[in-house]
Amino acid sequence: MAGLAGLRSRAAASKVIFSGIQPTGVPHLGNYAGALRQWVSLQNEEPVTTSLIYSVVDLHAITTAQPRESLKQWRTEALASLLAIGLDPDRCTIFHQSSVPAHAELMWILSCTASVGYLSRMTQWKSKLNLAESSSIEEKKVGGQLKLGLFSYPVLQAADILVHRATHVPVGQDQQQHLEFARECVTNFNSAYGKHLVAPVTLCAPISRVMSLTDPTAKMSKSHKAERSRILLTDGPDQIRKKIASALTDSQAGIAYDPANRPGISNLLDILSIFDTRTRSSSELASDYSDLSARQLKDMVSDVVITGLAGFRQRYQELLGSRRDFLDKVEADGAAKARRSAAETMSKVREAIGLAGAS
Amino acid sequence: MAGLAGLRSRAAASKVIFSGIQPTGVPHLGNYAGALRQWVSLQNEEPVTTSLIYSVVDLHAITTAQPRESLKQWRTEALASLLAIGLDPDRCTIFHQSSVPAHAELMWILSCTASVGYLSRMTQWKSKLNLAESSSIEEKKVGGQLKLGLFSYPVLQAADILVHRATHVPVGQDQQQHLEFARECVTNFNSAYGKHLVAPVTLCAPISRVMSLTDPTAKMSKSHKAERSRILLTDGPDQIRKKIASALTDSQAGIAYDPANRPGISNLLDILSIFDTRTRSSSELASDYSDLSARQLKDMVSDVVITGLAGFRQRYQELLGSRRDFLDKVEADGAAKARRSAAETMSKVREAIGLAGAS
Repeated sequence: MAGLAGLRSRAAASKVIFSGIQPTGVPHLGNYAGALRQWVSLQNEEPVTTSLIYSVVDLHAITTAQPRESLKQWRTEALASLLAIGLDPDRCTIFHQSSVPAHAELMWILSCTASVGYLSRMTQWKSKLNLAESSSIEEKKVGGQLKLGLFSYPVLQAADILVHRATHVPVGQDQQQHLEFARECVTNFNSAYGKHLVAPVTLCAPISRVMSLTDPTAKMSKSHKAERSRILLTDGPDQIRKKIASALTDSQAGIAYDPANRPGISNLLDILSIFDTRTRSSSELASDYSDLSARQLKDMVSDVVITGLAGFRQRYQELLGSRRDFLDKVEADGAAKARRSAAETMSKVREAIGLAGAS
Repeated sequence: MAGLAGLRSRAAASKVIFSGIQPTGVPHLGNYAGALRQWVSLQNEEPVTTSLIYSVVDLHAITTAQPRESLKQWRTEALASLLAIGLDPDRCTIFHQSSVPAHAELMWILSCTASVGYLSRMTQWKSKLNLAESSSIEEKKVGGQLKLGLFSYPVLQAADILVHRATHVPVGQDQQQHLEFARECVTNFNSAYGKHLVAPVTLCAPISRVMSLTDPTAKMSKSHKAERSRILLTDGPDQIRKKIASALTDSQAGIAYDPANRPGISNLLDILSIFDTRTRSSSELASDYSDLSARQLKDMVSDVVITGLAGFRQRYQELLGSRRDFLDKVEADGAAKARRSAAETMSKVREAIGLAGAS
């Protein structure tokens, strides 16, 4: 019986959740609803035996040209944001990817068994370069434009996950292909060197996409040129009220949840639902407030978002101000924890291949 | 004047020579004549201000499938060989590439500005897969067979050189393309992030190719299936005598240096020249010994090679036997020195990009 209990507790202890966020500055409401909110739920709901590892993936950020000098600031802002949304650095491992050289090391090792053909059929490098899905790396135009980093970053992404022996990865629909590729990397490595890497499974996020306020048929995005298309988590009451007031809706009377025909109103209901203290769905909210005008709905959404983000904004400003030393300590401690986690995997991997120790 | 002297000594101190050897077990005579011998000459001839950095590039070895469990042994044999040929670990930095994670880290960073088109035009991945020069990565057959590691290893090779700020790299003709690519990586990085990386130049080796004993029109090679086609630096007197006795020559009378028409005899003269204590050229040796028979020449070559390698074999055996602790210490010290050298570059590189510190 003791053996069985031991087995159970080991099995429970072996659950490892990994996820990453690109350091593109302060997250917007779409990032929060689509990913970060789930990170906090996992922290609050998973048993303490589950490891939670969250990374600011700055090595991924450089696959596309970055404005010089910005990345450092964006990294810090991303880290502060993770704490400000409520992640507890004692409970989770929160770190900058570039603090842990093992990510790049394992990436090289995985490269040696990763198929170029498989990578060339993946779609993300094409969409990042605004190329047609039928584009091929052999086209002169493509070969000149495509950098190896962008082409090979699914391998680094696989290494991010595998180096921490993650068992579960919360990913959106657009990242399914990459998680499938990570599993392929595990199969390739394990069949060459023995079963040392763990194949991760998808932890499905409740789908909650937040759309652009100015074009509610497109996702809210950092790269959209109109600032009022998105709400940053740091936006103050006036900014929030102004952006929501100017959100594109329609001229139909009343409120209904109908994303296909009434995308603007439906997006406002989705936003309302994110912060609803009674956790009503967007449809429930629509029926509760069916008689409101668009203007009244906007006022209500503004109030709820302002209240919902007030704590974030305050914590964020403190972290970058009076609590800057604490932020630095979180960064250093997180890096050390992540390095230990990665070192455990790398020592097995090195031994299996016959490589030298790294320290 | 003090300033000028300071400047001079800094300029002199900044010469850094880097080279690497694949851990494919005990080197053969071709490896020695073509590369390793020059490493020792550089040690003996360069001023003490020149840094000499020699790496056993085990991360490169895994771009092609390795027999499991062999790599570790081959790494150790390669390291012992470097000491046994006369490299002084106090004078040089001698280390296993996989002991220094910064090589893989810098590789990723260089990847982000390295062109896939440029890499796909390089020839070595095609020759390693026995593909025609006209092969393209888009061919289904190629894409399935080609692994990312083999395709992208020129970037790792560039990182090997650049991470130690090497100014000079001794390379053979077949590696010129890769050094050119390393310079391209410097240009790409420096134009994106500022002048932080150093462009290396070629340190031309005196061409001295040793040919196969069984087929003197092909290079002596580790991969040839006939063991008697090559002389390993650890071969004993009997093995050396037997291999040289069975070397393919021709039936013409007398000795002449004529690689095109008398490749076997010419190869023996080249081998003789490597170990000649009076440092005569192959042509000089041919005229000094023009009247000998092939059999007499072979006896003389055997004697000279046996004498020339006797010291190596003894030192090598001691290093893997009674001096094993010393070998382990050299490995640890070399790794620490190489990590310090790489850390200096990486701290500049990280600062320039805005990445986090690695420790």
